[in-house]
Order: sequence, then structure tokens, then C-alpha cells
Amino acid sequence: MTNLQTIEVDLGKKSYPIMVGDGYLSNRYQLSPYIDGHDCMIVTNETIAPIYLKLFLDNIEDKVINTVILPDGEEHKTIQSAQIVLDKLVECGANRDTTIIALGGGVIGDIAGFSAACYMRGLPFIQIPTTFLSQVDASVGGKTGVNHEGGKNLIGAFHQPKMVLIDIAFLETLSDRHFRGGFSEVIKHGAIADAKYFSWLEENIDNLLKKNAEKLIEAITRSCKIKASIISRDEYDIGVRSLLNFGHTFGHAIEKCLGYGQWLHGEAIAAGMLMAARLSALSNEDLARLKNLLTSVGLPTTQTEIQAEKLFEAMKLDKKIQAKKLRFILLKSIGEGYIDEDVSDVSVMEVLNYSDI
Amino acid sequence: MTNLQTIEVDLGKKSYPIMVGDGYLSNRYQLSPYIDGHDCMIVTNETIAPIYLKLFLDNIEDKVINTVILPDGEEHKTIQSAQIVLDKLVECGANRDTTIIALGGGVIGDIAGFSAACYMRGLPFIQIPTTFLSQVDASVGGKTGVNHEGGKNLIGAFHQPKMVLIDIAFLETLSDRHFRGGFSEVIKHGAIADAKYFSWLEENIDNLLKKNAEKLIEAITRSCKIKASIISRDEYDIGVRSLLNFGHTFGHAIEKCLGYGQWLHGEAIAAGMLMAARLSALSNEDLARLKNLLTSVGLPTTQTEIQAEKLFEAMKLDKKIQAKKLRFILLKSIGEGYIDEDVSDVSVMEVLNYSDI
Repeated sequence: MTNLQTIEVDLGKKSYPIMVGDGYLSNRYQLSPYIDGHDCMIVTNETIAPIYLKLFLDNIEDKVINTVILPDGEEHKTIQSAQIVLDKLVECGANRDTTIIALGGGVIGDIAGFSAACYMRGLPFIQIPTTFLSQVDASVGGKTGVNHEGGKNLIGAFHQPKMVLIDIAFLETLSDRHFRGGFSEVIKHGAIADAKYFSWLEENIDNLLKKNAEKLIEAITRSCKIKASIISRDEYDIGVRSLLNFGHTFGHAIEKCLGYGQWLHGEAIAAGMLMAARLSALSNEDLARLKNLLTSVGLPTTQTEIQAEKLFEAMKLDKKIQAKKLRFILLKSIGEGYIDEDVSDVSVMEVLNYSDI
Repeated sequence: MTNLQTIEVDLGKKSYPIMVGDGYLSNRYQLSPYIDGHDCMIVTNETIAPIYLKLFLDNIEDKVINTVILPDGEEHKTIQSAQIVLDKLVECGANRDTTIIALGGGVIGDIAGFSAACYMRGLPFIQIPTTFLSQVDASVGGKTGVNHEGGKNLIGAFHQPKMVLIDIAFLETLSDRHFRGGFSEVIKHGAIADAKYFSWLEENIDNLLKKNAEKLIEAITRSCKIKASIISRDEYDIGVRSLLNFGHTFGHAIEKCLGYGQWLHGEAIAAGMLMAARLSALSNEDLARLKNLLTSVGLPTTQTEIQAEKLFEAMKLDKKIQAKKLRFILLKSIGEGYIDEDVSDVSVMEVLNYSDI
């Protein structure tokens, strides 16, 4: 077992640790000390439960443990799923000290976190992310929520976890496609905030894809540090936090136009990042570096299925709900993102019509 | 028109003003400057809408105004009602700048506030309380939520309003019984925190019941100041804020045993406060003062319908959900409440069996 890395998310009274390691959760890691009350509720899904649930039932002693097993998939990230969790909490007589444990990927983290936020106006919760995407990104930062047919994550709350426990051992059972999808957010972190990290990723991408434990832990730790630093400056996403949306305005539109689930979130964000990069005043060399790194992971860097006009329309519809004006996260150079609210429609259409660099 | 009184709720970046006056909202008071975005949504109910909605539609200029009219009554304070509001927000393409305006009593404030808390992880909202109870208590403090069949306010959020606009002109159309019910919380504020205010209430209760504008504005202002002061010390209800629950453990049990809606909330709290007072080490004189003041408003100070054992059971069930141990808010004297977690069951049963003082 490698040493545990700990990152502190600095949010005043709401600060919390992120712990990153290899195999420590399967090593009779004692969760009980982190559960304040006398009971907890594990929220997980049908994919994770058969493989990992027993492990956690064994790792929590002297506590009443309740469980909710939800169906797997983004299409179940609904207010109805949150209600299943809330009903179960009522049924178990949960009180303000009941700890919610999210055991799963981003969807489980979002539903469990939102339920924790709403029950009795806020229960403590612990994130145990099991996918690479949720380990490097989704489990940190306190954004919780469910989808509405009108849009992704429309119903939600800011609710910070008490801690995030990351174990790369979970990645052994993750599909190769989902594993690769998670690299979009890793590469994003380097691209918007840390040129050295980006270079390190270029140097180590082969070992990362081979799931070298030491390298994976370093990538997760560095990604979480970047995200933690941004969040501690802007918990409620009214300023600098929007840098984390690099590639997401384009990516969300791709996901929507192709139909959710056709492309993984990470795949759509990869193509979206290249589009945003082309819109930026970026050198050809930097643009090529971003494209090459995404390509080496096997992620798409363009899309040809959706017409430019249709994609732009979807982005504007997103705009109608998200803000008064389309805001773009662009790059000055690799490692330095910025917010631009003055991008012309003509420039956007040029990028959308660009089929390859 | 009397002068507007303004109270500041001190919550750092989330601080907001409470304005109290007579007839100012009907005097073409301009709400538009307080609505940041280009649109707003008024949430109200079937009782209020026919009387007051047009007034507000006229008082908001240069903004897109959407409205949701919910059925009236505590039985509609459900997650389904919140979903009606959320669906309407999606339908209107609401964004993070859309301001929610709660126009109604405590039920509307709770549903509208909870919907505002959840939509896109938090919209700005304005409270315009139209009942005496919500003017002196419910509209201030940021507690929002809906009921679950397992208990009152089980699903909710802390979400502070941007401002609270209180106009006593609304009280003209309020039923006498509901008006009197609101005095429970007023008397509670004096009893737990302000002996001088309690004495002032004793001296002025007749004029208050006659709806003397100056006295009503003073009572609302003083009550809101007491509540604001407590909330600014304990926004998330983990300490001193529980003083505001004086009479509520007993009162909630009465409401539950009699069936919600049989007694008004204020009526149950009145009887509950006398029970809590009897449990306190209070002088006979202070006890008599509390009883007399409640009686002079026409509020109940005892209940004989429910058996003591049944009431205690309901309190303990409440306990199962609320906390590990029954916590009582008691009085040292009129004007000084305290929290007691060490009350014996025998003492509680004595009080429950007490039919009159």
C-alpha cells in the first residue's frame, strides 16, 4: 500500500480533507471514526453494490448502517431518485447526525449529496468516488444536484462533504472507455491552471494509461489540488470557478445534440476543449499540444455528426438558462485560462465549422 | 403612511434588510430596483392572488413577471408544490438572476424559498409575508422547506432572502383567528429574550388586538430584531437558535395528535409554551404573567383532549427524528430562556398531566 496523500480544501468552517491512496479502503480502513452520529446511510448503485458494498459494511463498526441501491446511469439522476433516498431516510428515522455516504461515480455523488443537502436542511456526507472522472473532479467542490428534463443539474444545492476518500483500487473494475473519459478533466486542470502539470501529463500519459499506481495518485492529487484551490476562492461559482467550465459550453451542446449517453461526458468535453482552444488566441504549438495529449488518451478532438448551426442553437439554449450572454472559457496559453464574455457569433461559427486543425 | 422601519439581519455577505411599514406596498412602491435580473417569479396562493396579485404586477416595471398560484393550506406544503414552482421556472427559462418573490404566509414563504434554494443551486428571493405569524417570525431567518409524510419541514434548505418587505396593510384581510395565532410567536420572543418587550406587550395588548398601526409596527419591528439577533449568532441552528423553539416540542406534538389544521400552529404553541413554562424553575408570578398574556389574546393555555401518555409518545417520536435526546427550551424568568437536555421523564409527565395552573 502506498502512502495516503491528503489535500485540504480550505473553506473556513466547512474545510475538509481529500485522501488519496491505493487499496487503503479495502484494507479494513476504519470509517467509523468519521461518522459522528450513531447511524449512516450508504447510497450506491446496482453496478457498485455487488462488488464493493460488503467491503464497506465490514469497514463500519458500532454504527447502524442503512443502504439505498439506485439503478445505474445518468438517466436516473432525477428528483425521483433523490426522493427514494429521502423516503428511506424518513423510514429509518434519520436525524441531523446521520451521515450519508456516497459510494459510486458522479451520478451517485450528485444524488446522495443533494439528498444530504435537503434532509432536515443538511446532513453530513462523505464522498467515496469510484470512477476516475469523479475522483479527479466531480467529488470535490460541493456541487450536488439532479437533472430536470429542461436541463442538466437544474435542481441542486451547494453542499460540501465532510471528507472525500479516493482509492485508485476502484479503477480496476472500471471500463477502459470510462477510465479514458476521466482524463478530459485531468487535462483540463493542466490547461486552465498549471502548465507544469500539463507537461508532466504529456511525459507520463503512457504510464497513467497503464494505471501505474504512483502516477495515478500523483495525477489525482494534483488535479484535486487545482480544483480545491479554485473552489476555496469561489465556493458559490460566481467568479473564478467558471474556469472549470473550459470546454463545457461546447461539450454540453454536443452531449445534448447527440443524445445523452451517446458520448461520455469526458468525450464531449475533450472535443469541446479543442473547440474552445481554437477560439482562443493560442499559439499553434499550444493548440497542437492539447490536441496531441487528448488524442494520445484516445479522446475525440472534433465532431462531424452535428451541423454547426444546430450545435450553436443548443449552446444558445443553454445560454437562455445559464446566463444572459454566452461566456467562454478560453486559454491565453497552456496553463492559463480566462473568461471572455465578448466573443462574436462569427468567431464561434468559424470554430463550429472547423472540422480539424 | 407611517415611516418605514428598517432592521438589518447581520449575516456577513448574506446580510439583508427587513422593512416594516403601513400601506407602503400599496402606494406604488417600486419593487423593480430590488430585482437584479430582467425577470422575476411571484409565488402566491389562491387566497392572496385575487386580492393582492394585481397590485404587485403593477408595482414591478420593466421586468418580465411570471406567476405561480398554488392552492392554500399547510397540506399543500409538499415536494409536489415545490416541483410545480421548479417546472414553471424551467418553462420560463429562468436563470441564476431570476428573483423569486414569495407573496403569502409561512407556507408560501417556505415553498417559494425552498424552490429558490434548489433551482440552479440558488436564486435570489424576496419575502413579502402577508400573515401576522409570517411577518413576526416565519419570513425571517432563511429556514425554508416542505413537509414529508414522515414529519414537518423534513425536506428543506437554509436559504436567506435578499430582503423581507412587511406591510401591516395585509392584516386587514386576515381572519381574526389567524391574527391572534400570530401573537404566540410575539409573546415567545419576549419570553425567551426580552423582559422589557414582554412588559410592553402586556401594556399594549389591547391596542395591538385593535390593530393600532403604530403599535403593530413596533411589535413586528421588535420581534424581528430579536429574531435577527439570534439568527446572526447561529444561522444554521446548531446552538442558541434553538431558543426560538420555546413551546414547540409540546406544540408540535399537540398539532400532530389533534391532526394538522385542527389547532392553528400559534394555538398549539401557546399551550406548548405554558407546558414548557411549568417545566421551568419559574416563579408563580412569571408563570401567571405568561398565562394571562396568552389568555388576553384568546389563545389556549392548556389542552385536555389528548392523553398525557399519547402526547409524550408523539414528543418522543419527534425526538427520534430531531435529536438523540429530548431537548427542552425553558425559562429562568420572563425574558431569559435556556436550553435543558436533562429533564426527567417524570417531570415531563407531571406537566402533561397538569390540566390547569
